[in-house]
Amino acid sequence: MANEVVFRSATEQDLERIVEMLADDKLGATREQFALPLPEVYREAFRAIDADPNNELVVACLGEEVVGVQQITFTPYLTHQGGWRATVEGVRTSSTVRGKGIGTELINWAIQRAEQRGCHLIQLTTDKTREDAIRFYERLGFQATHEGMKMKLK
Amino acid sequence: MANEVVFRSATEQDLERIVEMLADDKLGATREQFALPLPEVYREAFRAIDADPNNELVVACLGEEVVGVQQITFTPYLTHQGGWRATVEGVRTSSTVRGKGIGTELINWAIQRAEQRGCHLIQLTTDKTREDAIRFYERLGFQATHEGMKMKLK
Repeated sequence: MANEVVFRSATEQDLERIVEMLADDKLGATREQFALPLPEVYREAFRAIDADPNNELVVACLGEEVVGVQQITFTPYLTHQGGWRATVEGVRTSSTVRGKGIGTELINWAIQRAEQRGCHLIQLTTDKTREDAIRFYERLGFQATHEGMKMKLK
Repeated sequence: MANEVVFRSATEQDLERIVEMLADDKLGATREQFALPLPEVYREAFRAIDADPNNELVVACLGEEVVGVQQITFTPYLTHQGGWRATVEGVRTSSTVRGKGIGTELINWAIQRAEQRGCHLIQLTTDKTREDAIRFYERLGFQATHEGMKMKLK
């Protein structure tokens, strides 16, 4: 099954399904608002992402069904001798396909895309309470070398 | 002295001084290449940052002297109900002004700028070996809630 996964850029038609997946998560459940019609804030964010050549919202599909999503941001930095980095965020797979390797394919796709775009580094932060996710990323080759520090703003 | 600090967008004329500061650091010393003329990779990265409305390279100045630098990236995300985030990277202060609060002013400036741009979150990652930096950011209100996971690419 996993080898039938097709990756493509998300369209606004995918947005309800994407937000449904973002909300179907232990942390997402408390932060997202999956309701139909979809809150306009999600459509505004989609359009901002879609308009930015340095942001890519990617969905994984099995046939007609969207079963995974991730956002990849490409950023030029002066550090590391002027290197581009890829940052992955909002990674979710559908609860209907857990354990089928879709998450692994998603992240491997992001790694390949980052290499295509000339990035020297791919990075992400994951909540320290997501112990399974941390082990998952470590198996794929990420190392938890940094503290991911955050501050909520007004 | 600290209350005379002026913040402004970096120009290409500041680049030599910025790279000198990036290299004058325990980790930066092994990764940067401060030589004159400056390696072209830094100029290319500067132009990419300067051309991107979602990236701001900011310098702190005392009179004519550039004494601090940071890059702030603004990213639209679907997560957190379509919220924008600010990510701070490449923060350095001149070794000539350590202990004068320039770093605090720099980060407080980034926080204000993030609020102006409507961000709900400001974030950064810092190497776990930078224990002083971690304590510095915690004092300013950041919390190390996440693992910062990285993978080097070819």
